[in-house]
Amino acid sequence: MKNVPFSDVRVTGGFWKNKQDLVREVTIRAVYDRFKETGRIDAFRFDPEGTGIQPHVFWDSDVAKWIESVAYLIAEKPDPALEAMADEIIGEIAAHQAEDGYFNLYFQQFAPDKRFTEHGKHELYCLGHLIEAAVAYYEATGKDALLTCVKKYADFVYDLFVVRDGAAFVTPGHEEIELALMALYRVTHDPKHLDLCRFFLDERGKHPERDLGAPRLGLKYAQGHKPVREQRTAVGHAVRACYLYSGMADFAKETGDKEMEDACRALFDDIVNTKLYITGGIGACHFGERFGAAYYLPNDAAYAETCAGISLAMFASRMQQFSADVRYADVIERVYYNNVLSGLSLSGDEFFYVNPLELDPAALTVLRENGEKAPLSHRPRIFSCSCCPPNITRMIPTFQRYAYTVSEDTLYVHQFLASDAKISVAGQTASVRQETDYPVSGKVKLTVKNYTGRLAVRVPSWSSEYAGEKKDGYLFFDVKGETEISLDFCPAVELIAADPRVSADCGRVAVCRGPVVYCLEEADNGPMLRDVRLSADGIFTEAPSAAYGLPVLETEGWRSEEGEGLYRPYTGSLKKVPLRFIPYYAFANREEGGMLVWVLVKD
Amino acid sequence: MKNVPFSDVRVTGGFWKNKQDLVREVTIRAVYDRFKETGRIDAFRFDPEGTGIQPHVFWDSDVAKWIESVAYLIAEKPDPALEAMADEIIGEIAAHQAEDGYFNLYFQQFAPDKRFTEHGKHELYCLGHLIEAAVAYYEATGKDALLTCVKKYADFVYDLFVVRDGAAFVTPGHEEIELALMALYRVTHDPKHLDLCRFFLDERGKHPERDLGAPRLGLKYAQGHKPVREQRTAVGHAVRACYLYSGMADFAKETGDKEMEDACRALFDDIVNTKLYITGGIGACHFGERFGAAYYLPNDAAYAETCAGISLAMFASRMQQFSADVRYADVIERVYYNNVLSGLSLSGDEFFYVNPLELDPAALTVLRENGEKAPLSHRPRIFSCSCCPPNITRMIPTFQRYAYTVSEDTLYVHQFLASDAKISVAGQTASVRQETDYPVSGKVKLTVKNYTGRLAVRVPSWSSEYAGEKKDGYLFFDVKGETEISLDFCPAVELIAADPRVSADCGRVAVCRGPVVYCLEEADNGPMLRDVRLSADGIFTEAPSAAYGLPVLETEGWRSEEGEGLYRPYTGSLKKVPLRFIPYYAFANREEGGMLVWVLVKD
Repeated sequence: MKNVPFSDVRVTGGFWKNKQDLVREVTIRAVYDRFKETGRIDAFRFDPEGTGIQPHVFWDSDVAKWIESVAYLIAEKPDPALEAMADEIIGEIAAHQAEDGYFNLYFQQFAPDKRFTEHGKHELYCLGHLIEAAVAYYEATGKDALLTCVKKYADFVYDLFVVRDGAAFVTPGHEEIELALMALYRVTHDPKHLDLCRFFLDERGKHPERDLGAPRLGLKYAQGHKPVREQRTAVGHAVRACYLYSGMADFAKETGDKEMEDACRALFDDIVNTKLYITGGIGACHFGERFGAAYYLPNDAAYAETCAGISLAMFASRMQQFSADVRYADVIERVYYNNVLSGLSLSGDEFFYVNPLELDPAALTVLRENGEKAPLSHRPRIFSCSCCPPNITRMIPTFQRYAYTVSEDTLYVHQFLASDAKISVAGQTASVRQETDYPVSGKVKLTVKNYTGRLAVRVPSWSSEYAGEKKDGYLFFDVKGETEISLDFCPAVELIAADPRVSADCGRVAVCRGPVVYCLEEADNGPMLRDVRLSADGIFTEAPSAAYGLPVLETEGWRSEEGEGLYRPYTGSLKKVPLRFIPYYAFANREEGGMLVWVLVKD
Repeated sequence: MKNVPFSDVRVTGGFWKNKQDLVREVTIRAVYDRFKETGRIDAFRFDPEGTGIQPHVFWDSDVAKWIESVAYLIAEKPDPALEAMADEIIGEIAAHQAEDGYFNLYFQQFAPDKRFTEHGKHELYCLGHLIEAAVAYYEATGKDALLTCVKKYADFVYDLFVVRDGAAFVTPGHEEIELALMALYRVTHDPKHLDLCRFFLDERGKHPERDLGAPRLGLKYAQGHKPVREQRTAVGHAVRACYLYSGMADFAKETGDKEMEDACRALFDDIVNTKLYITGGIGACHFGERFGAAYYLPNDAAYAETCAGISLAMFASRMQQFSADVRYADVIERVYYNNVLSGLSLSGDEFFYVNPLELDPAALTVLRENGEKAPLSHRPRIFSCSCCPPNITRMIPTFQRYAYTVSEDTLYVHQFLASDAKISVAGQTASVRQETDYPVSGKVKLTVKNYTGRLAVRVPSWSSEYAGEKKDGYLFFDVKGETEISLDFCPAVELIAADPRVSADCGRVAVCRGPVVYCLEEADNGPMLRDVRLSADGIFTEAPSAAYGLPVLETEGWRSEEGEGLYRPYTGSLKKVPLRFIPYYAFANREEGGMLVWVLVKD
């Protein structure tokens, strides 16, 4: 089983076309403008006295992800101006790459004698993102300037780390290069690239004296507490973790390393069974941006970084290549329709890094007075560590990459979006058209041409349709020539409860409609959202909303009756109130105020 | 209206006698032993090279409160050994007091040139506690050695602050001396003592450039943001606040300062209407040990310092002298039966500083990994800042001081405990006997002799008895000669709800029986306490418990039925489970585990 490249699938309309157009028309340039304003672009001119600004050690990666995003956008639709902007940065990289192949904005300009002396300084992480950008840009444009640079740098790293053991540390402090090397290897077929990936995976967890973790959090912070093949529990920094697991899965798929595959399966299960927000967010803890203990999923204090959700989707898409298990596509869908989209404002130029499932204005005020970490209740245009915005610009335009996989004898359909695809499968080039307004409705019309063989179509786990017909979450069809299949997954409103070990959610339900989690906002429902009750048999009315691209949900609920005193005998008296739920991903696009996903339910 | 001294009331048995005996037999010496071990006692020998230990700037106050506690205990029942221990420390104070009257363990021994140079260094706070100790010790023993010392020190402070303006700051960084000076003035009748109190009250909030606040929290931290007569909202460090408000109330009572009295009334209302835990705890925030915004009362993250509860009871007892308002005695009762008693282990030698209303072991693990402030789930024997233990030893033995007030024509009974009192009222010396096992039952038999006049007996606000007969929360009787009055307040189990603005408590109830808040502990009920549901019509059975001195409560509740998956369609299926509630004050006296006050309720 393998994934189908995003460029084989053209999005033709509907929900994702709107989001992708927004990124193309607004977000990609907004991110560039912010990067320009903050010195991230000019840093590539290596004229520090001219700009007067000292780059952060991770700035290379921010801009690399922007270049990668441009590659995906221009592969889909030419944009010479955008391409010229990327070319200019790539030109500066080629011009300033060190003789030996090294490249890093900060170290070359400000600490040339400190290269590869500190485990936590992101040099290999930056190279990873440069590699991903180079591969994407080469595939989109045929231009190999950046690819040439990163191959030279990768050769340098191979020599330094593998041949000479000449760095202060052995494996990256922030994983990412592992999955990037696998992408590079699939283009270059250079065994050194595979070997370098193998080296970084094999050595992780074996050099605690050199591959340091983080203060207080120790080796687990960067998954360096034990060899990767022995890891079974997701720990530490969530983005680091899922980038690592993605690289592990890529490597296991490429080499047939069953031990590595088993570790990936266990890690995936641990995340989705115990550490996943209903929005697809992972990494509950602000401190260390990391996984908490199993079932530790606070809503107001949720971290759920946008990049972490993205990294989980990346991990799931790798797992999808091992076997057809509907849970992988379910997770990708959950992440994308909630935690990823919430990272971007409806205007397309503001971003969330942290994606809480509750905003309680009074509590936020106190946390801010305390100087404690608290989620923002509005989206800024950039962050000092601005990894999330260019991750959004590279992921939203390529959602279609998760739509299909092919095995020797089966074409799998995992995600639903209006699109035309040409897919190589079983020696044929199948043409697959999806006509759908999913997830507005659950109706999908599939037209498959030029393919004779087995077709598997995922039934999303939230759907109660096709219960008797599906196998492992998929419907199977034998198709021949031209086939039309019409499906309807009927995304009804459903109240979802959490495992009672999730203490934050006890006695509460989330309102979901298909893959989309909904929320209450103060702008619609007034303050004191935690006092609102739903009942199991409440009737929800759907009202179309152009602003959200999905209906809003209206229903009747209850609130406490007025009472006297801070504490008062419990009477159970409730009054009916109208309620309006909006898609979670659209929260915080109006005036600042309270927001709530998990709502009390009348048992 | 004025309070009746604790020494006019002798506790003869029952609930408080048991607690007071525990303090007398265990706690007072346990605190001394810890103070000895940590160098707090030997620091008074002024032999730093001998001990090698540098005192904290607040150690004087810790030991002063211990001496004050000894005074109360030996006033009630002689204990020559304890008195000798106190005398020895007092002797050291007298021997080492500076020529000019100054005394402070830290500054005299380690920074003699820094006296009164830093607003936040607790010198006046320490003097305040030394004054309280001196007055109590003088009244208990007739010995005036310590009283002589503090008068000399107070004279020095008067000269330095009022006459010469010779300190770096104008008013204390940690209030306490204000109320202490009022206590001193009532013994000395020296107008300078009243004037010094007036000076510290009048100048507060007028010197922001010299009377600094705390980093990030600013002037509000120590109530220095505006003149005290203009303050209407309780802000900042909760103990500082209520010690200040107590001093303000004392001063207003003594001088008839109506503006000051109005400020006190507003501040009291603000606390009890918006910032009070059901346990009587105040100061919700760990950071700054301070009041949060109105209705910000998180349960797991509650600070609710033992000393803060005590300071609120002190404030309420001052307010009780302005007028007979049942809310004052209600607050004192709420604080004492819950937040104060929870500060002491059942064994009498371990202490809580922080008194949360919920312990969630998984969340605590994460907070500790984060290095964030988290409540302890067991009581230590001492703290590095050990203000709470000697506050408990001075407050529990004197609970009877809150039992009575007298006005020109009325004798008020506010608190109920088995006791004999001789009370000066309306030119008579009334004898009042209370026979009661309150709060085990609500039965109180009052026998009043040698008094002809009006008797007012508080009906606790939790009681639904005497609804038609009481006025402003009190029952009024005209008594003459010898009178017997038998009352029963019937402390039934009641479910209490919070104002829905308290977001942490929405959909939840607290189980209360009379003045006592109950809680669920994991030791009795297993883990996942937040999933437990009660119903409004549940039947509670009371089972006597010698360990707690109050019955435990048994009932049936519900928990979620087993289910599959981290997230699952809500079914509303619940299963019945037996539940056991214990008094909140007795939590964390067994193995460590979860605890919960606010329990879900089936609407």
